[in-house]
Amino acid sequence: MEENKDITIYDIASKLNLATSTISRALKDHHSISEKTIKKVKKTAEEMGYVPNTLAAGLRGNKTKTIGVLIPTVTQPFLSSLISGIEITAQKSGYNVIIMQSNDSYEAEVSMAKSLYGSRVSGVICSLAMKTTDTSHFHQFVGNNIPLVFVDRVPKDFNTFRVIIDNYAAGFKATEHLIEQGCTRIGHLTAGSKFGNLYTERMRGYTDALKKHNLPTDKELIVDLESVTYSEGVKASNKLLSLKTPPDGIFASGDIMAVSAIQSAKKKGMRVPEDIAIIGFNNDPISEIIDPNLSTITHPAAKMGQISAEIILKNIKSPKKEDVKEITFLNTEVLIRESSKRK
Amino acid sequence: MEENKDITIYDIASKLNLATSTISRALKDHHSISEKTIKKVKKTAEEMGYVPNTLAAGLRGNKTKTIGVLIPTVTQPFLSSLISGIEITAQKSGYNVIIMQSNDSYEAEVSMAKSLYGSRVSGVICSLAMKTTDTSHFHQFVGNNIPLVFVDRVPKDFNTFRVIIDNYAAGFKATEHLIEQGCTRIGHLTAGSKFGNLYTERMRGYTDALKKHNLPTDKELIVDLESVTYSEGVKASNKLLSLKTPPDGIFASGDIMAVSAIQSAKKKGMRVPEDIAIIGFNNDPISEIIDPNLSTITHPAAKMGQISAEIILKNIKSPKKEDVKEITFLNTEVLIRESSKRK
Repeated sequence: MEENKDITIYDIASKLNLATSTISRALKDHHSISEKTIKKVKKTAEEMGYVPNTLAAGLRGNKTKTIGVLIPTVTQPFLSSLISGIEITAQKSGYNVIIMQSNDSYEAEVSMAKSLYGSRVSGVICSLAMKTTDTSHFHQFVGNNIPLVFVDRVPKDFNTFRVIIDNYAAGFKATEHLIEQGCTRIGHLTAGSKFGNLYTERMRGYTDALKKHNLPTDKELIVDLESVTYSEGVKASNKLLSLKTPPDGIFASGDIMAVSAIQSAKKKGMRVPEDIAIIGFNNDPISEIIDPNLSTITHPAAKMGQISAEIILKNIKSPKKEDVKEITFLNTEVLIRESSKRK
Repeated sequence: MEENKDITIYDIASKLNLATSTISRALKDHHSISEKTIKKVKKTAEEMGYVPNTLAAGLRGNKTKTIGVLIPTVTQPFLSSLISGIEITAQKSGYNVIIMQSNDSYEAEVSMAKSLYGSRVSGVICSLAMKTTDTSHFHQFVGNNIPLVFVDRVPKDFNTFRVIIDNYAAGFKATEHLIEQGCTRIGHLTAGSKFGNLYTERMRGYTDALKKHNLPTDKELIVDLESVTYSEGVKASNKLLSLKTPPDGIFASGDIMAVSAIQSAKKKGMRVPEDIAIIGFNNDPISEIIDPNLSTITHPAAKMGQISAEIILKNIKSPKKEDVKEITFLNTEVLIRESSKRK
């Protein structure tokens, strides 16, 4: 990449054929300089993109000791744990964290990335909006040595740091756990067609676990939700439970869906886990409140946040010059509680 | 460390081998420039991380079209609704929102206020950290014509805009509702000694409602939680339910506490609402999930966010010079669901 010049008062002086001292004074509205010259100098400074020294210093090297976090939403417990992990790590090094929510809109994400760049953050941690396919709005960070980490929902083809879990393996483990508890007809609640990759990977794990154990994959046992809400979950669960041959187990790709499955099953007079064993995903707080307590997949969200922040902090100090393609995989665990425990 | 320089239109011009005037016009979609060039220039500008002059100007004088939100936490559903209300309103006017969590720490709040000021936000909306008693770190905004709104948890003695609900009236209404359902021995779950004013006001409403209806205030019926979590709620509920004469109604000053009361009562074999009627506060999503559904006090959090953002936007355009002391009170309602409905 070509060298970029910073505009100094010398450039303005040379352009206007004036002394640098005149430029300096004019920019400060000094009384010794005529109105007309002040106006001309300021206009030229503006046009040339001059940024005053003190601020420019902040804008360049030191930035603001702030890490920007750009995520779909703060309302998912998993994402608030992620934020906490980032904050705790950042604050130890004297960095603050600012958060922006894209609400899964591509346009909002583009605009917010620009805002973050404009506020001179020291680094950016991003989980992509659902609607994002083009990620060129992140080049401004990489092109300017602002460390960038993608986390959880990451692009396939962007060479930077990525911190993720193995969603395929997690889906496999969850399903295999139900099989081990004696389930032979396992339903799956997902939102893959709307919410993409994470969910489709978990579903791939689900189908592969069924295959491994010689259980048939029955399309009517997979319900794809329009949105990951309790009420959509109830609709989807009722669809599964009303089948001619209802499932004897459900792997839900999120805890809120699993909770709706528990409540729906109970309303139909089914016993959980005896008649139907249920497992969710994420270990949201509600999984410990619901009765019976929900088995789930633990999500190392806080750890992900910590690692992402550590990558940022390390790379602020010594930025890598070349493209990086560093993927950190974190482990998930099956957390067995009452809702799936038959043995 | 290498110098990180600001990109100007000169850099773009030099990279593309075009005149700066062409770049400048292309960035403004000037009719004299071809579609193709406009596209090329914008793409290069984006990749190089160019920030338009207007923004550079914003960095100096006029701020960044960003509203800063400084709140205790993003994890409370009520506060995420507040954020949504702010965002929707701000985005309509082309403003982005950045969020910082103080985690109820005074030191963090001071540091974050400084960060927000340093990032040149256009306005600030704040709900105070629990530990904050001195609010002088907010003078930097007021002193520099950056509009400031306090919301929900507000200082008593700071002359700026405040948007709040009437916590006393809400506590009164909740308690009176239980009395109308036939409860004569009403317990109260609060966190007032740890979490201050909001809770103590609700408790004042509770005791005054009891007085109005000639019911005695019994100190053993009030349990003051160490923290507002499910497990603390269960401990507190069990304390109430194990009294020699247990309560026949509970007003919990938050939904998570009320949910723990429902679950604890059910585990003791008590019927809700027949044996014990329960009402919460905030109308969190869980109140519709729990069985029986939880009666609660609706909290106009999204509306609060909207109004706060509107105040900011209005005052960015025409800042008030003098101190303001404008308090907006919003209404709450009793939302009657299964957990308290006996009649």
